[in-house]
Amino acid sequence: MKSIKVFAPASIANMGCGFDIMGMAMDAVGDVISMEIEDGIGLEIDNRSGVELPAELERNVMTPAVMALLAAYGKPMKVKIIVESKIRPGSGIGSSAASSVAAVFALNELLGRPFEPMRLVEFAMEGEKLTSGGVPHADNIAPALLGGVILVRGYDPLDIVNLPVPKKFFCSLVHPEIVVNTRMAREIMPKEIPLRDAVVQWGNVGGLVAGLTFGDVELVGRSMRDVVAEPFRKRFIPGFDILKEKVISAGALALNISGSGPALFALSSSEEVANRVAQIMKEHFAMMGKDSDTYVGSVSNFGARIM
Amino acid sequence: MKSIKVFAPASIANMGCGFDIMGMAMDAVGDVISMEIEDGIGLEIDNRSGVELPAELERNVMTPAVMALLAAYGKPMKVKIIVESKIRPGSGIGSSAASSVAAVFALNELLGRPFEPMRLVEFAMEGEKLTSGGVPHADNIAPALLGGVILVRGYDPLDIVNLPVPKKFFCSLVHPEIVVNTRMAREIMPKEIPLRDAVVQWGNVGGLVAGLTFGDVELVGRSMRDVVAEPFRKRFIPGFDILKEKVISAGALALNISGSGPALFALSSSEEVANRVAQIMKEHFAMMGKDSDTYVGSVSNFGARIM
Repeated sequence: MKSIKVFAPASIANMGCGFDIMGMAMDAVGDVISMEIEDGIGLEIDNRSGVELPAELERNVMTPAVMALLAAYGKPMKVKIIVESKIRPGSGIGSSAASSVAAVFALNELLGRPFEPMRLVEFAMEGEKLTSGGVPHADNIAPALLGGVILVRGYDPLDIVNLPVPKKFFCSLVHPEIVVNTRMAREIMPKEIPLRDAVVQWGNVGGLVAGLTFGDVELVGRSMRDVVAEPFRKRFIPGFDILKEKVISAGALALNISGSGPALFALSSSEEVANRVAQIMKEHFAMMGKDSDTYVGSVSNFGARIM
Repeated sequence: MKSIKVFAPASIANMGCGFDIMGMAMDAVGDVISMEIEDGIGLEIDNRSGVELPAELERNVMTPAVMALLAAYGKPMKVKIIVESKIRPGSGIGSSAASSVAAVFALNELLGRPFEPMRLVEFAMEGEKLTSGGVPHADNIAPALLGGVILVRGYDPLDIVNLPVPKKFFCSLVHPEIVVNTRMAREIMPKEIPLRDAVVQWGNVGGLVAGLTFGDVELVGRSMRDVVAEPFRKRFIPGFDILKEKVISAGALALNISGSGPALFALSSSEEVANRVAQIMKEHFAMMGKDSDTYVGSVSNFGARIM
């Protein structure tokens, strides 16, 4: 029997304008699992995290991810997973991605690293199919596995680009006590969008990538405008526009919805501003009668790792 | 009386996926004008280029561009322009942009450079309004003025980002004898596009910007796919798909429509391949019974300049 304990970080998908194609790792919070393997067949998931997860194996995102890896490995194994701590599902900070990534990363390590990171991304994406209505995305998976800021240039074939992270780049994250179902958040989006909005969006994607590679945080901030998803998804967030005004006034570069929400994140070029912004976020939701968790941290250049 | 002679290069707008937001300068061809100014009021355009231009002053793109600059300058001048050589209008390589840029660049020089480049872009965009149905674009103007590869992150306010040009970056350009009206090429585009196509497009825009800044020409090539405009605009180009296959087989990174066409361009990482591709382009259109002009050159890091 071999065993390992791993951490997979939370991740912020979309990053404003980069709907379905960009994401970044956020180290302040994540999943911790322990895994044991031995010869045999079977999967067991023991949830000790205190966070409610589906009781049925086939509804846990780790199951298809582990199955995909073992199918490619070509030899069955008996796998036991203990979920020690867990990002709450439905938070919008990549809870399901952290689970899938932790599982495939741990299993790959225990098997002696038979697979390259890009294959692990593909296996973990099988888990995402469960939560996103059958369409697998890599914008949480890739940063949770690889760390840093990730561009998913395309899916056919999977083409993942690591973008550099500017040195002065702090993230304030708030997870208010609101339930947003990922599938519902996807279904609220229109199937067609005005061409002129699309042009604005890809101008911003270009600016965001350029800003990151040049280390130009002002350009990053100007580019983090989402005219496609935010107008629909902000209706789930009480007082979104007011909060945005407040955090921008406090010096943040931008405020955006993390993934499909309800978590929000703001980037700042100083830790002092990032702390003040987290405080403003907390107070905003308290005023709305909602509890919230806030986190402040640098963008992590490390993804999943052995603890 | 003061006089000057200037050159403004051709430019390739859109660059595949960057519809309305990206463009690059192409030095192998361009406009040459001479300008004289003296005290007084008036504009005279003397076309000696051999290329047909509108006889009426108000239909020449240089007129609104010059007027916009003089209005901001606050003092009328008597301006005489001699058009010495001219990119053929309707080519899709920024003929109108080269005119507007040459005019505002020359006038700014003669006046002692009262305006920064970004203001010149704005003045020259007034000329673009004439050709694009009232919507001014900067994706030809900015590269023709500034050189290199340009990202127009946004228009409100105008936010222009200079992108680095990889060293091994050769362009083969073909201008077949086909008439494509810019306004018609714009009107053929749908007002709404599928969200999933938009996501593909902005993934590619991100990849293109990353590829340029990293100097990764393979990533540039993979990213130069246009799923938004090309499916509509390629119908103006006889045998477009066949030609694309041929030039990719010959080693080009990508083949795309320049602006709204009919000019096409292919990027390559070697001059040898670029020359072979130009030959293939020429033969393709000859087979279709169309004459064509071809050019091969590096992407120019220089924009408008004094001759």
